[in-house]
Amino acid sequence: MSEPAARAQTVGFIGLGIMGRPMAHNLLRAGHRLVVHSRSRPPVDELVAAGALRAASPAEVAEAAATVITMLPDTPDLESVVEGPDGLLAHVHAGDLVVDMSTVDPLATRRIGAAFGERGAGYVDGPVSGGEKGAIEGTLSIMAGGSEADFERARPLFEVLGGTIVHVGPIGAGQVTKAANQLVVGVTIEAVAEALALAAAAGVDAVKVRQALLGGFAASRVLEVHGQRMLDGAFAPGFRARLHLKDARIIEHTAAELGVPTPALAVALDGFRALADSGRGELDHSALYLLRSVGRPAGEET
Amino acid sequence: MSEPAARAQTVGFIGLGIMGRPMAHNLLRAGHRLVVHSRSRPPVDELVAAGALRAASPAEVAEAAATVITMLPDTPDLESVVEGPDGLLAHVHAGDLVVDMSTVDPLATRRIGAAFGERGAGYVDGPVSGGEKGAIEGTLSIMAGGSEADFERARPLFEVLGGTIVHVGPIGAGQVTKAANQLVVGVTIEAVAEALALAAAAGVDAVKVRQALLGGFAASRVLEVHGQRMLDGAFAPGFRARLHLKDARIIEHTAAELGVPTPALAVALDGFRALADSGRGELDHSALYLLRSVGRPAGEET
Repeated sequence: MSEPAARAQTVGFIGLGIMGRPMAHNLLRAGHRLVVHSRSRPPVDELVAAGALRAASPAEVAEAAATVITMLPDTPDLESVVEGPDGLLAHVHAGDLVVDMSTVDPLATRRIGAAFGERGAGYVDGPVSGGEKGAIEGTLSIMAGGSEADFERARPLFEVLGGTIVHVGPIGAGQVTKAANQLVVGVTIEAVAEALALAAAAGVDAVKVRQALLGGFAASRVLEVHGQRMLDGAFAPGFRARLHLKDARIIEHTAAELGVPTPALAVALDGFRALADSGRGELDHSALYLLRSVGRPAGEET
Repeated sequence: MSEPAARAQTVGFIGLGIMGRPMAHNLLRAGHRLVVHSRSRPPVDELVAAGALRAASPAEVAEAAATVITMLPDTPDLESVVEGPDGLLAHVHAGDLVVDMSTVDPLATRRIGAAFGERGAGYVDGPVSGGEKGAIEGTLSIMAGGSEADFERARPLFEVLGGTIVHVGPIGAGQVTKAANQLVVGVTIEAVAEALALAAAAGVDAVKVRQALLGGFAASRVLEVHGQRMLDGAFAPGFRARLHLKDARIIEHTAAELGVPTPALAVALDGFRALADSGRGELDHSALYLLRSVGRPAGEET
């Protein structure tokens, strides 16, 4: 195979953390030729042992692969992979495709996507939900932004990694959708926490209250799943409070830039920060309940 | 029929407002002998024309009926019907049953219930959800508090008035459940309003965002129903913002008494107050969206 032909058929993967590592394995297993890069060495060694090629920098990934997936912890991590002399942007070729699956700032996403566009490369933002379990099982929900053509190019990769795949709109629309999702989930957890804490403090059986509420307009997946965690005092993650704090900060920044008031998000953000500041950031985000409960376990009737 | 026998088989109904009037009609239609009282005259005349007996005061209701249902706008209204020389408490007989279906303060409910208990009368709190439509159709959801025996005595009346009937716990448990319900619904509306306003302000199609969110952990009845109202700009009630403001004030007071922090409730309460203060209190509670939207209709993509 000629070098350009090999490059066209190679997928780059940058960021082999809790999410990225199993996603890269899934791409390998699906038969993709993969070149990987990550800040820490052990997951790179592991992927190389499984058949991937090693790259020492984002630049080397861009030189080896015409399609590059990034899966990074936060906006500055993405920026450092994209920018600078060893960054993707300086080494991308016209006609390439960059697919960022991190959860990052929607407005930064638009700027980055536009910068790739100026170099003739396509860009798709495809943040996910479904957590480590979804990454391992290849059942992530993917909310994508980008042109119709770029989305169609990314789709075969998304189909390896995800179950539900929605193309919401142009570049950034995936990140906006993820932001809306994390806003609603975070604030709904806070709502359920306050309500069940109130019931417990009033000496009413919160198990029955949750059951009664599930029958009406208060019904939600959060009341179902996270409400049950609160009743059980079961706060092993799931989705960690410190990661929801990160997402909430992104949303707050985006909302501020757009002039949208988000006072309920601010409440949830304060809660996630209080958990992180008190050494409970590794607990599930439903641990917001611990900040509202006045001592009585929710499941215990008096 | 002897006077005591007639009294035993008569149901009193106090409060013939938007909710109480159709509920009283349903009891009449179900064959109950009914004595009614209300502050305003026209609904009393209407019920009398339909076959009910007229009472000039709560005292007259208590003298005529061994079971009395109250359906009043707020806690002070209930207190004024219960207390004083013409109030229910001064005229209730031992063995009678008082069933309050208003949405009022859970802690006041306990005090009032205990006062009736001291006079040998039973007390059940059975606040409802389902609105005017549920009241007319006899399909209200009823969340009840009281002893098992008193609840069983109230059940045949509840079955005329409601669809879903849940006995949550002792006196006050119905009001606590209603408070928890209104807290979750109010805060979830705020969450959905902020999220869809954010999506619209970012120029992303909020119709697609709502659809994507309904597939995951952000899913809720509120996102489904009230989210659609926000997309349509359709804020005809439904449940009026000023009534949710009243409920939110009750919840805030109860939470403060119990020492439960409810910062997200406070955000929703501020929103309902802002709607009421700006002459929009008669709109549906989903009109919280109007406070977060920065001008672009949610359903319009840019």
